[in-house]
Amino acid sequence: MDTLKFKLTIAYDGTNYAGWQVQKIGTGVQEKIESALQRLFPGVKRIHSSSRTDTGVHAIGMVAHVEIPQEQFKMPLARLALAINANLPEDVRIVAASRCPAEFHARFDASGKQYRYFVWNHHSHQPLLRRETWHVPKELNLAAMRAASALFIGGHDFESFAANRNYKPESTVRRLTRCDIRRSGPLLTFIIEGDGFLYKMCRGIVGTLIQIGLGKFDATAVSSMLEKKDRSAAGMTAPAHGLVLWKVFYHPKVRKPKLKVSDAHRPG
Amino acid sequence: MDTLKFKLTIAYDGTNYAGWQVQKIGTGVQEKIESALQRLFPGVKRIHSSSRTDTGVHAIGMVAHVEIPQEQFKMPLARLALAINANLPEDVRIVAASRCPAEFHARFDASGKQYRYFVWNHHSHQPLLRRETWHVPKELNLAAMRAASALFIGGHDFESFAANRNYKPESTVRRLTRCDIRRSGPLLTFIIEGDGFLYKMCRGIVGTLIQIGLGKFDATAVSSMLEKKDRSAAGMTAPAHGLVLWKVFYHPKVRKPKLKVSDAHRPG
Repeated sequence: MDTLKFKLTIAYDGTNYAGWQVQKIGTGVQEKIESALQRLFPGVKRIHSSSRTDTGVHAIGMVAHVEIPQEQFKMPLARLALAINANLPEDVRIVAASRCPAEFHARFDASGKQYRYFVWNHHSHQPLLRRETWHVPKELNLAAMRAASALFIGGHDFESFAANRNYKPESTVRRLTRCDIRRSGPLLTFIIEGDGFLYKMCRGIVGTLIQIGLGKFDATAVSSMLEKKDRSAAGMTAPAHGLVLWKVFYHPKVRKPKLKVSDAHRPG
Repeated sequence: MDTLKFKLTIAYDGTNYAGWQVQKIGTGVQEKIESALQRLFPGVKRIHSSSRTDTGVHAIGMVAHVEIPQEQFKMPLARLALAINANLPEDVRIVAASRCPAEFHARFDASGKQYRYFVWNHHSHQPLLRRETWHVPKELNLAAMRAASALFIGGHDFESFAANRNYKPESTVRRLTRCDIRRSGPLLTFIIEGDGFLYKMCRGIVGTLIQIGLGKFDATAVSSMLEKKDRSAAGMTAPAHGLVLWKVFYHPKVRKPKLKVSDAHRPG
């Protein structure tokens, strides 16, 4: 059966989900989207995502691909996102849907990702932001945090900042290209960008930076933490609800010419 | 019984409240704060606010005053906000608490207010902002909306933009000092500032501006809408959940010297 392949950009409030993936206990965001697609296109089997976010983590720019049987896809492309959204709960939304070449893979073709982590640094939490910011009431030494954040940039073995999972990845070396901290009043935004991330790595980095801001570690301690390749050498894991998968990057060189070909087959 | 007077700055997520005021049906934010205060200081009777927000409306900077019997107030002032917050649900927070002079009245001394209204202008809503933005999926003519918003500035009879309430205010003339529209990607922020607001007036202004952006009215229609002094002449009322009471202003000239006197009596 001939299929058409689509790239979906997905946003969700992770508060009520057991993460992205289909779970034994709790609901994954993935199954909500798969059911919505299957209601529209019964031949859809599953969607493949760039990333698997953890319980409680949010997304603005999750990317996934899906194959839809050509004979079942009869709507104009511009209606696809709206049609899926009409079948989704209000905490999950398809932000964009486009055709992609048959070779495109949301996970294997991703060249990098940007996560953002939000902290509300004030004695009282901000009620409207309580679901997507970590409330840190104590004063933070931002200069020390920024000095420390620079030490994460570049290629490092991040084993000390990743939680153990059932499986061990082939390599624990990752390359961070950005680790910025912005402040706007009580709101701190951590912008962390890299070619890949180990399990809970972003939250390990943010938790450690906050503890540096609180004076628990010196800013320079990051280098020795990285060297030790031991989770217990680094700081705490920041809570899930402050983390947002912000963007997934794909090499434009690989993608653009192929997209043009598939555009010629655009239905509607 | 001698009392001390305090000025409270309050933030809340209005999603689950029937507005500020104590209600016959549903819960008002006010009663949550009064119960929290009474648990700490049994002699507290009620709090007096600058404004009464409607069902579903939020606040970042609501102001209220409260009198606490002097003999019951034994904590350092710096602990007051934390102590009240410990007795509040997580969708209501005391952001600041300070002493104020016995003559201070949160409502009668207010010289002006700023409201912000948030619109998410994209085909799909942003799940993390769904409780505090109005989703307007269609394209908006921002230039027309900005031209129209300028016509609200100054002193006008705003009867056409206010919903009828049980009581009729003495005058329906109000002075707007600001009516700006900012755009940051799909997020539109309306910043509306004035010396006072009629019932649902902000939402009438925003609803009308959005309908101008959609081409239902010309930008210049605002002037004749104001002249007609008739609610049916203007546009729709924007939904409550996009509105946030942002700031309440008090004349610094009146307040500052008095605050110095009360500072001398500061406990702790």
